[in-house]
Amino acid sequence: MTERIVLDYNNMLAERIGEHGISSASIDTAATRFSAVHADTQQRRDSGELGFLQLPYEHDVVEQIRSFADGVGQAFDTVVVLGIGGSALGMSALLQALRPPRWNELDDEAREYFPKLYVLDNVDPVTVGALLDRLDLRRTLFNVISKSGATAETMAQYLVVRDRLQRELDEEGVRGHLIFTTDPEKGVLRRIAAAEQISTLPVPPAVGGRFSVLSAVGLLPAALVGIDVAALLAGAADMIERCGTSDLRANPAALFAVLQYLAQTEKGAPMHVMMPYSDQLAGLSDWYCQLWAESLGKRKDRAGRDVFRGPTPVSALGATDQHSQVQLYMEGPFDKTITFLAVKQLDSDVAVPRLHEDIEDIAYLGGATLGSLLTAELHATAAALSRNGRMNMRIEVPRVDAHAIGQLLMMLQIATVYAGGFYDVNPLDQPGVELGKQLTYGLMGRSGFEEQKTDAPDPRWISA
Amino acid sequence: MTERIVLDYNNMLAERIGEHGISSASIDTAATRFSAVHADTQQRRDSGELGFLQLPYEHDVVEQIRSFADGVGQAFDTVVVLGIGGSALGMSALLQALRPPRWNELDDEAREYFPKLYVLDNVDPVTVGALLDRLDLRRTLFNVISKSGATAETMAQYLVVRDRLQRELDEEGVRGHLIFTTDPEKGVLRRIAAAEQISTLPVPPAVGGRFSVLSAVGLLPAALVGIDVAALLAGAADMIERCGTSDLRANPAALFAVLQYLAQTEKGAPMHVMMPYSDQLAGLSDWYCQLWAESLGKRKDRAGRDVFRGPTPVSALGATDQHSQVQLYMEGPFDKTITFLAVKQLDSDVAVPRLHEDIEDIAYLGGATLGSLLTAELHATAAALSRNGRMNMRIEVPRVDAHAIGQLLMMLQIATVYAGGFYDVNPLDQPGVELGKQLTYGLMGRSGFEEQKTDAPDPRWISA
Repeated sequence: MTERIVLDYNNMLAERIGEHGISSASIDTAATRFSAVHADTQQRRDSGELGFLQLPYEHDVVEQIRSFADGVGQAFDTVVVLGIGGSALGMSALLQALRPPRWNELDDEAREYFPKLYVLDNVDPVTVGALLDRLDLRRTLFNVISKSGATAETMAQYLVVRDRLQRELDEEGVRGHLIFTTDPEKGVLRRIAAAEQISTLPVPPAVGGRFSVLSAVGLLPAALVGIDVAALLAGAADMIERCGTSDLRANPAALFAVLQYLAQTEKGAPMHVMMPYSDQLAGLSDWYCQLWAESLGKRKDRAGRDVFRGPTPVSALGATDQHSQVQLYMEGPFDKTITFLAVKQLDSDVAVPRLHEDIEDIAYLGGATLGSLLTAELHATAAALSRNGRMNMRIEVPRVDAHAIGQLLMMLQIATVYAGGFYDVNPLDQPGVELGKQLTYGLMGRSGFEEQKTDAPDPRWISA
Repeated sequence: MTERIVLDYNNMLAERIGEHGISSASIDTAATRFSAVHADTQQRRDSGELGFLQLPYEHDVVEQIRSFADGVGQAFDTVVVLGIGGSALGMSALLQALRPPRWNELDDEAREYFPKLYVLDNVDPVTVGALLDRLDLRRTLFNVISKSGATAETMAQYLVVRDRLQRELDEEGVRGHLIFTTDPEKGVLRRIAAAEQISTLPVPPAVGGRFSVLSAVGLLPAALVGIDVAALLAGAADMIERCGTSDLRANPAALFAVLQYLAQTEKGAPMHVMMPYSDQLAGLSDWYCQLWAESLGKRKDRAGRDVFRGPTPVSALGATDQHSQVQLYMEGPFDKTITFLAVKQLDSDVAVPRLHEDIEDIAYLGGATLGSLLTAELHATAAALSRNGRMNMRIEVPRVDAHAIGQLLMMLQIATVYAGGFYDVNPLDQPGVELGKQLTYGLMGRSGFEEQKTDAPDPRWISA
């Protein structure tokens, strides 16, 4: 039997931490409201709006991915993903969680002959240039990921990469070193692929970037480095089933969403810190930050009224950030929640030997393990926050494996949709980034955007 | 002539962005108050309280560092820093900014025969074990950094490392593979070093962890990988001189501090996002987050009254996080400021070739460079935020070199002390982390801490 994710939310509650906690009465009220949110979600799912909920059942796409990964994919030493935002964060999180640390530094044997995997998720020429200059292009596969095919950063990288491939390889070679993950029908990448017979994988139309980790967007890179994508999807499917209930207290995604929502709206805590106590889960926290911020940070409510809503997710890492952020979390304003991501069973542990036993300040460490110290620090930090009246909760995964990560990814995506219901905003759009794109086009001289100008700074307010 | 950092704060101001901006009158009032803050800072500096302001002039320590780095240090292929928080963030920022990207993946020639440099800033056994298992200990130097010598995470790592060294090397060998950076007089590491003649470098008593990047804490690792520490310190000294003025509008550290302070206290913006548009500066943003959070997040004011003060710093990265966080920044609550870190002159650039010129959606990119796209995105994002009434400012470094980074590090440290003055809290202590430490001792069975117990969770509130 596979183990399930557990939520411990004692320390979110007023009865435990005092006046700055959430009352049981508030949760009861939210539980009633959740019935409607749950029904609405079900209806949106049935109407096909929530494409990410179908991804665990797309067996033909999974077959396509595995056949590419086990076939053509084996010919490469290195895979480079060109993608940004939702096209990069999910696969980065999967790589970090489910492959050994510092994957790209390991030799072939330690990687079990799976390829190295890089993601270029920025257009900083220093980083892009340095990586491309030292790759052996003849042994490198480029996975270009953009649903629209028009993402400026990704397409600029694609042009750079394509030019280098053309200089080094023949036409057939160029084609064989590219695979596009994009809309099944539309867009620039689809058009190029069709004209040149370049391999492609689909991003379903009803799956937005930040909900795409379990589509080919995340699964192809994962499969290429040997991650068990079937187990990921099985974990995700288990979570969908578990969230079939409209009973708030039995639905982990709903509990997470409601507690964070009440923390902001009733307890004045708009900042939602996600703090894994596991280096492997750090990337997952960054992935969550996009999901939560971009889905819930909205000017308009569903009726089109100006509301300027949305929590601010913050990524932290335990135990490291106990020495950076926790002073503020303990003593600053009562304006945030901390969600610990804990791992019940670590993959491996390191014994701390008994040395310097005459030195009291460190002797207590001998005979312990690093894992037990990490766990003790999590529990100590949670208890100290609670005594200071600070809302905190714990999501515990049974272990860091594909099934558990599948559960967690799905739980947080469903929670985001529920939170959209409670905040009364559309969690699937991102209208606020449009203006910045148009101004960029204007600055880059794109035809049709000549009118888009940025404002000149007033030299009075520049300190040189 | 070396170029200076420039601040553009037009977009923080009401006259530019409207009602959600800061009024000129508020800045005038703050300018008057700043005279007192400046005088107080000067007095604290003279009394020796602000040790970090002396670091650029400690020529004998710099000589010690360089002599170790150029001598014994050359014998190693790999340097591993054991440190956490202020003992790790500064050197990580320096490595990322001032050495080529992905340093540890480069071969000896690309590293100019300088060693690889790792930092173990967590006790996750998966990460620690994986790294130690693949290092050649005979070619590895361990730099153990803890001012007190009692940091649980660092000392646990030290015990693990020491045991492995003892198994592999003789007594002389063990000694030769360790160097401690610690208090010059007190603490566990000092005591061990004295007993066993292990090399050490000092952390001056008046320099706290988060203000220690320009002490041996940051400079030894930097010097070992070939960073020009003299130029770093020269840049820092230039900034100290520039901040000698009590004229707010001519003092860049003061301007930064005051604008962030007014944003929180007068405009309801407690979240301060630091968003470099440069992969190289991402680590610097994490370093700033510790500095700002741990210095200003305080329960008590200087008179000892409960005030629960402090802004929450948030680390973001441009252009990447335009596809993750910027939707929220554009449309969510008016509760944050965005500080862009811009680079005037990039070290290198990558041309975007003219390909697919028949496809309008991407043709405009051909003929540009990745650097120009990155810069355009910064300006477009700043302009779009401003049109949406969102406070934002820009710190521009002339280029990413040691002198400029020295200026920037010093500017943000001085700004933190000034902000302590405005928030009326002690920026140098961190009393809020003590309880968590004691509870950890209790859980780890340290003698004398048997009474420290954490609260058992109530199974009613666990969803399994």
